[in-house]
Amino acid sequence: MAVSIPDSHRDLFDRPVVVTLVTVMPDGQPQATPVWIKYDGTHLLVNTARGRQKDRNMTRDSKVTVLSIDPDNPYRYVEVRGVVDEITEEGALELINELARKYRGAEQYYGGVAPAELRQRETRVTYKIRPVRVLAH
Amino acid sequence: MAVSIPDSHRDLFDRPVVVTLVTVMPDGQPQATPVWIKYDGTHLLVNTARGRQKDRNMTRDSKVTVLSIDPDNPYRYVEVRGVVDEITEEGALELINELARKYRGAEQYYGGVAPAELRQRETRVTYKIRPVRVLAH
Repeated sequence: MAVSIPDSHRDLFDRPVVVTLVTVMPDGQPQATPVWIKYDGTHLLVNTARGRQKDRNMTRDSKVTVLSIDPDNPYRYVEVRGVVDEITEEGALELINELARKYRGAEQYYGGVAPAELRQRETRVTYKIRPVRVLAH
Repeated sequence: MAVSIPDSHRDLFDRPVVVTLVTVMPDGQPQATPVWIKYDGTHLLVNTARGRQKDRNMTRDSKVTVLSIDPDNPYRYVEVRGVVDEITEEGALELINELARKYRGAEQYYGGVAPAELRQRETRVTYKIRPVRVLAH
């Protein structure tokens, strides 16, 4: 079962707030990077390209944590500890375009790049993170 | 040996930017919280109270990671992977007051609380994090 993000803090995922995604390196060291994110009501969805460090980490260790801090008030934040339920390339290009619209107001993430060239360049992947524990402050 | 924070990104610790501190829970799940921070040229210094989750985590597992994102440009950030070299109560109250001045413009963190009452209430602790790997973007 997924734990829900409380309504009081849902805006921290619905607004274009760049959040911190934490994965774990093979030696146990946390790896933290800023990412775009979408909450679909069940999972937190992040999107990256195959082969990147966070892709390799999430494929090996499903325990990940997301922190979203209100840009208008850093003392208001939500920490979501979760597990990666699914890793899929299906719909991943659509998702990165949706995130580009949300965060950049751009129509496409790869503006002007032909789909065939894009597939050669990199493979987009979506990670579906199921919240297990949510700490809202 | 500590790795240095490059001059190009030092402002992300010198300015009052609330950063993300990541520790590791006993089950391997990352724990991420916003914290105040100081860079003394060698270590990143954070300060909390004894008994809190991040205190317990850092005491058990010295591998921690800090992410500071430029509030004016979320695509400019620095990730510092490090180890806790030292945990000390010495100077910890002075440090939290220094951080309160930096982040809040307040003269004291515990304004108006008598030192004796303060010691009963909680014990402040400083964690000295030695950067091992720095990724500046």
